[in-house]
Amino acid sequence: MDYDQRYNDYRKIIDERLKQVLVEEEPNSLYEPIKYILLAGGKRIRPVIVILSCESLGGNLEDAINPALAVEIFHNFTLVHDDIMDNADIRRGLQTIHKRWDINTAILSGDAMFAVAYKLLSQTNSKRVGEIFDSFAQSAIEVCEGQALDLELETSLKVGIDDYIKMISKKTASLIKNSAKIGALLANGTDEQIQALENYGFNLGLAFQLMDDLLDVVGDSGEFGKSIGGDIINGKRTFLLLKAMEKVRGKDKEIIGRVFAKDGLDPSIVAEVREIYFRYGIIDETQKMVRFYTDIAIKSLENLPKSDSHSMLVWLANKLCERRI
Amino acid sequence: MDYDQRYNDYRKIIDERLKQVLVEEEPNSLYEPIKYILLAGGKRIRPVIVILSCESLGGNLEDAINPALAVEIFHNFTLVHDDIMDNADIRRGLQTIHKRWDINTAILSGDAMFAVAYKLLSQTNSKRVGEIFDSFAQSAIEVCEGQALDLELETSLKVGIDDYIKMISKKTASLIKNSAKIGALLANGTDEQIQALENYGFNLGLAFQLMDDLLDVVGDSGEFGKSIGGDIINGKRTFLLLKAMEKVRGKDKEIIGRVFAKDGLDPSIVAEVREIYFRYGIIDETQKMVRFYTDIAIKSLENLPKSDSHSMLVWLANKLCERRI
Repeated sequence: MDYDQRYNDYRKIIDERLKQVLVEEEPNSLYEPIKYILLAGGKRIRPVIVILSCESLGGNLEDAINPALAVEIFHNFTLVHDDIMDNADIRRGLQTIHKRWDINTAILSGDAMFAVAYKLLSQTNSKRVGEIFDSFAQSAIEVCEGQALDLELETSLKVGIDDYIKMISKKTASLIKNSAKIGALLANGTDEQIQALENYGFNLGLAFQLMDDLLDVVGDSGEFGKSIGGDIINGKRTFLLLKAMEKVRGKDKEIIGRVFAKDGLDPSIVAEVREIYFRYGIIDETQKMVRFYTDIAIKSLENLPKSDSHSMLVWLANKLCERRI
Repeated sequence: MDYDQRYNDYRKIIDERLKQVLVEEEPNSLYEPIKYILLAGGKRIRPVIVILSCESLGGNLEDAINPALAVEIFHNFTLVHDDIMDNADIRRGLQTIHKRWDINTAILSGDAMFAVAYKLLSQTNSKRVGEIFDSFAQSAIEVCEGQALDLELETSLKVGIDDYIKMISKKTASLIKNSAKIGALLANGTDEQIQALENYGFNLGLAFQLMDDLLDVVGDSGEFGKSIGGDIINGKRTFLLLKAMEKVRGKDKEIIGRVFAKDGLDPSIVAEVREIYFRYGIIDETQKMVRFYTDIAIKSLENLPKSDSHSMLVWLANKLCERRI
């Protein structure tokens, strides 16, 4: 089966439905920025995981679509607010909402997206609606906690890899885990099946975030939609930076220390840091970690019923692990 | 029955439960500001309405408490974000979160409060849980739309009383309406009973907001927890200001026009504007509008079963209509 084609088909359905959700809503001052961010594209990984998880246990797309859209809209809400907090200028190749409009617009549009996500979720037709709500709400809390940990990480002087993993477990992996869980609940899966899909989503989420950190250093800028080396220039405490803090010595330590301290960083430092990351095997180590979590994700699925959707979940994990964008 | 006493008892229960919800949550950087705002007091009108509406149709407090807390936490979330947007320094006699901490903390703590509200709501045990979620989500959307309309109102040159009523219908009345509706749903009320309590809440919400506008001009500053005349100094488009724009003439028109245009306002203008509001009967007219909506609210309840909770809903409407704070 051509999973690339099928993935694109799902994306088209999701994009089309997102358009319908927002058509003719007022006031414009609230909904125009929401349409702007939601229709600016995006990989739609989370809603596709909701759908595939549901289908893999015998459910169908129509059952899964509203919760899938809810997860995607919630995710976009977090991007809008995170971009304010990170003072980010560009998202998906476009100006961020607080840059194009202003901070108030970005705060309020984000809030409304959160509310719209819940409205869509409340239109879910499932006998397990209580668990679906609980899973979504729990994930929303964890995402906020993860963002708080991320902000703490950025100013803390003592940060280890364990703090980082705890942070991305909440900030990134929680929502992907719960996307898979919600799909499983929609199909009324057994406890074991739900747990298997949760494990898949959680580990995929970790792999996904590590890959994101890696792509800031080795990605293709045109495709990635962010500027390469942005994390380095901003002194962002990525997996790579924290690994480097552990490993590098001598003059290299001084350069990495400047990134960590966000001390006088300018674009010229990017090439130096990249070279250090390569020379100390940090690029290689990060790639191995991505593969490690991806393999756990795939292994989590082994006892689930075999189907095209099941195979596509495996394909998706490998695809994300190998992505260049 | 001593409803003042009973109201205070409900408040104590709500305050106590709010404390329990938040105990030992981490990270501190996220939950400390949440505790700060939630435990700073507040009238707790919305959760009391959830409880009384539920009880008035035969339900009990234990069924209603989680949704009641959810509504209160959601309401506080909107205060935190609105205070950023309005650049407000003081709330309930304390510094606002974005002043005491910073804007990022206020954005993120607000987001987490929204999520915690949903988490509590997802723990609701009711056969009508779908309708309860839907009602809550719809209200959340309307509150955001109302805030967007409010921001539009503040910069628009042509604003009428009808725009104002539309705005407060969403920004303030929607959540009070849905508090009453959720209480009715929890008690598994009939369609007519639910509608009656919705009407009660909606009209009470309108009366409540008009009273809030009025108290900025004639309230007791110590008790009100905000500075008196703040709306005037900020040129806020309240019911009183918009009425004054319609009615006043000559030199008075010039003064009111300056408030409307937010043009060179300083504390000395407050006394002048107050005097105009009194002289043109605008204070009196606003009080009559408060009474008008309060009476509709009370009348909405007339066909509901009589009980102490029913009588207390009537008492509460009159109380809010006569409040000085």
